[in-house]
Amino acid sequence: MKSKTEYLTFNTKNKREYIRITDKAKEVLDASGIQEGMVLISAMHITAGVFINDNESGILSDIDEMLETIAPYRDDYRHHRTGEKNGDAHLKNILTHHQVIVPVTAGKLDLGPWQEIFYAEFDGRRAKRLVIKVMGE
Amino acid sequence: MKSKTEYLTFNTKNKREYIRITDKAKEVLDASGIQEGMVLISAMHITAGVFINDNESGILSDIDEMLETIAPYRDDYRHHRTGEKNGDAHLKNILTHHQVIVPVTAGKLDLGPWQEIFYAEFDGRRAKRLVIKVMGE
Amino acid sequence: MKSKTEYLTFNTKNKREYIRITDKAKEVLDASGIQEGMVLISAMHITAGVFINDNESGILSDIDEMLETIAPYRDDYRHHRTGEKNGDAHLKNILTHHQVIVPVTAGKLDLGPWQEIFYAEFDGRRAKRLVIKVMGE
Repeated sequence: MKSKTEYLTFNTKNKREYIRITDKAKEVLDASGIQEGMVLISAMHITAGVFINDNESGILSDIDEMLETIAPYRDDYRHHRTGEKNGDAHLKNILTHHQVIVPVTAGKLDLGPWQEIFYAEFDGRRAKRLVIKVMGE
Repeated sequence: MKSKTEYLTFNTKNKREYIRITDKAKEVLDASGIQEGMVLISAMHITAGVFINDNESGILSDIDEMLETIAPYRDDYRHHRTGEKNGDAHLKNILTHHQVIVPVTAGKLDLGPWQEIFYAEFDGRRAKRLVIKVMGE
Repeated sequence: MKSKTEYLTFNTKNKREYIRITDKAKEVLDASGIQEGMVLISAMHITAGVFINDNESGILSDIDEMLETIAPYRDDYRHHRTGEKNGDAHLKNILTHHQVIVPVTAGKLDLGPWQEIFYAEFDGRRAKRLVIKVMGE
């Protein structure tokens, strides 16, 4: 099994942002030369998510609204007794999951026609990392 | 690393359906001859999910009810400005996640006694695809 | 591709508990000798979860509270017609997801500074299993 690992760093302007990273995954895959296997794309922070959905601004706002409804920004999370203010971002990470595995078939990301990979920042305005690891032959 | 890739197509009668696919994963695994590794089972659409739970009709209805409570069918999603009507299905996909990885040990799906794999259709009545990819030795 | 598989058994005192298992994953990885690849950590029951978050008791309580709000312990789940009483635990499993994949780079779990792996028990006080499978070279 061969592998190739790269890291991306995000530093968003807003507290919450949804950033399409399909092309970044493709670049790492192409550089790896791997034809059959998978790409693991995983946030390295506990206040960010990774998901696959539609590259359409309306649905990204709808997702954001749902997450804010279930896990709103609030002052009184128990986590805030530590001095932190980002309890909601931890909960949003749990709800969206922090990683996806994209199958690689015949040298390409084996995604459906509308599937795009997103990095979901829930507590931005500072450097946050993500790992992309391609594994296969 | 060896691999084997197959695609399933679903065309459900209902808008929402939960279809057990454990046996399909087993068939692809058996055909692959792989003894140690994993099976990636991943929806290729952004309005479907894949999860592991109990093959019991009551709990599948309970799951459906929870998803409809959190992310109800509604007219006023921002996504619907594009002409689509399936915003709720995108949100249900985010909540359930669209993929699972089943470990393969000694040539078998290494599942617990009650674990069954389900394809969750949230916007059916049309052809939808899923990829099963076995990887290992 | 090499692999190594181990199973953990939990028998919690409480119905719901969150148990840090990062060191257990590290032990299996070290025993495997694998330098590049991944560790799959997957609950073998449909009433437990596995997630990555912060080893801070406040946020673990906040996560528990969110799950209990969305999927409360209740008598009237349809699943309970079977005689079971753990419908809420099945729903909490769906919400948290039952598995994570940790990348392995240069022989180490490739986690961010605050990422810790947790086994989430939602229906404890009895033996429950989890599989850890390391795959790579």
